[in-house]
Amino acid sequence: MTNKNRLHVVALAGGVGGAKLAHGLSQVLKPGKLTVIVNSGDDFEHLGLKICPDLDTVSYTLAGIANPTTGWGRLDESWNAMASLEGLGGPSWFRLGDRDLATHLERTRLLKMGYTLSQITEEFSHAWEIEQSIIPVTDDVVPTMVDTDIGILPFQEYFVKQHCRPVVRGFKFINVEDAKPAPGVLDALQKAELIVICPSNPWVSIDPILAIPGVRNALLSNAIPIIAVSPIIGGKTVRGPAAKMYSELGFNPSALTVAEHYGSCIYDGVLSGFVFDNMDIMMSDEILKLGMQIFVTNTLMKTIPDRQRLAQEVLEFGEDLVK
Amino acid sequence: MTNKNRLHVVALAGGVGGAKLAHGLSQVLKPGKLTVIVNSGDDFEHLGLKICPDLDTVSYTLAGIANPTTGWGRLDESWNAMASLEGLGGPSWFRLGDRDLATHLERTRLLKMGYTLSQITEEFSHAWEIEQSIIPVTDDVVPTMVDTDIGILPFQEYFVKQHCRPVVRGFKFINVEDAKPAPGVLDALQKAELIVICPSNPWVSIDPILAIPGVRNALLSNAIPIIAVSPIIGGKTVRGPAAKMYSELGFNPSALTVAEHYGSCIYDGVLSGFVFDNMDIMMSDEILKLGMQIFVTNTLMKTIPDRQRLAQEVLEFGEDLVK
Repeated sequence: MTNKNRLHVVALAGGVGGAKLAHGLSQVLKPGKLTVIVNSGDDFEHLGLKICPDLDTVSYTLAGIANPTTGWGRLDESWNAMASLEGLGGPSWFRLGDRDLATHLERTRLLKMGYTLSQITEEFSHAWEIEQSIIPVTDDVVPTMVDTDIGILPFQEYFVKQHCRPVVRGFKFINVEDAKPAPGVLDALQKAELIVICPSNPWVSIDPILAIPGVRNALLSNAIPIIAVSPIIGGKTVRGPAAKMYSELGFNPSALTVAEHYGSCIYDGVLSGFVFDNMDIMMSDEILKLGMQIFVTNTLMKTIPDRQRLAQEVLEFGEDLVK
Repeated sequence: MTNKNRLHVVALAGGVGGAKLAHGLSQVLKPGKLTVIVNSGDDFEHLGLKICPDLDTVSYTLAGIANPTTGWGRLDESWNAMASLEGLGGPSWFRLGDRDLATHLERTRLLKMGYTLSQITEEFSHAWEIEQSIIPVTDDVVPTMVDTDIGILPFQEYFVKQHCRPVVRGFKFINVEDAKPAPGVLDALQKAELIVICPSNPWVSIDPILAIPGVRNALLSNAIPIIAVSPIIGGKTVRGPAAKMYSELGFNPSALTVAEHYGSCIYDGVLSGFVFDNMDIMMSDEILKLGMQIFVTNTLMKTIPDRQRLAQEVLEFGEDLVK
């Protein structure tokens, strides 16, 4: 194990793609060296339960109990509660597996008892024997709303109920001005020697993390490398609506567009390195012109060794940037 | 089908034993002729869910989707949510199967939307294709508390968490004075041509039904036969703590004691017939002295034909009492 595997690393992550790289990082770094700060904008209440899709995807993935086919939900899942709920005419558009349900039931119970989301996440991490830290970016409720051609939709209604079909006009992160970073978030960012923005949706996974007051300043004030990994490969996303969102918002979806996004006013001066796929190597010069270092590799993570290899490459790239 | 199968019958029921006879009645009576009025005293909130054990046992049983081994819970049940909840250190003393969970989730969701328990029960009955009426005795919250040697316990804590081990001193039906019968309860009692008190626990299944203001008067004012079936056979209960409760409260548990219970001040003059097991035939004279007619038969319902046969016998006994 080289020195880079002993770095303090913070990963910012949304759902499936972000969770995969976070998983790779969690495996190549020494235990306790990784903190994953997770988007809370997707969280919502459904069937009276507090559901945190990104947090659960990251936790299940790092715990090795995620469904390997879907990327979300649990391994060896059964769907009997959902089938029975459908039989009763209940809302079944958001698929909750039986094992997954326990997470939401217990989280909701503990929230009602007064525990915070970050405390509960830590408890669950212990139960699932996760040796790295996972923290929701905030304990406050900051729902992402999607402004679309059929109206303003809560994120999961856009994403799951409407299957991302509505045309996107913009986003709003409700209550974000008054939200506080969860305990441990600013500490982790200050202690970090490398920050990795995972290949998650810039609009609805990473922007909502950076929008929490104090988080962007913590990134800016810490003179360490910040590396983003493009979620767009060959103009497409592996999963999720990021490419579609770029198109609908008037951008050509590409690794370059993502680099511009992270190099734009919101992130100005923050990003030191950008990792994107071999397929997009022709964009290298233009991305270099944005003032960031680049690393071009195979970013598609089909297998667990893919995650580890990409994580290792990101760490090596980061180490080079430190020098 | 004889005339007796066209009677309007009301059955008062608690959990497993009551549900079995109610099921028999539901099968031998024409559809729409049976109303089962179910104890609400066992209902409680757990994991943020409204759980109605007796109501669900009766509904699942009449729908043919009850677990035939336990008598409660669902057929072909899986336990993945419970296993995962245990893995998180959550409360697992009250066993909720995956299919069963959907009932509680959807009921809780509909209650929060403003539907009443009786409306929801009717909806669920339709979904489960139950052709008879099932009504919780009240839409109000009337938790049964058990006064024991280790303190006053909510019913499910006594029954499930403590496995009925504490010594019982008495019962209290909280809020019962202010409770109203659910819509349809008094109507059914007034329209009834025969009322059957199912073989349920007199203390914690039947007494709480009769304690709802208006219910006992509706029984008294309707000059029709009321038949009770003893839940105690040979000094024991098939399931549940009725016999243990009688002992701890200073009574010898027997069919006679149950007949005295139903012939006592609470039910004075109400009971016209009493059905008990062949095993207790030696008590016939003493029970007759209480002023009620008797019918002695095999009351143990091991199979579905047993339920139908006992139901048919109860109806015939009732018809004789009408004459």
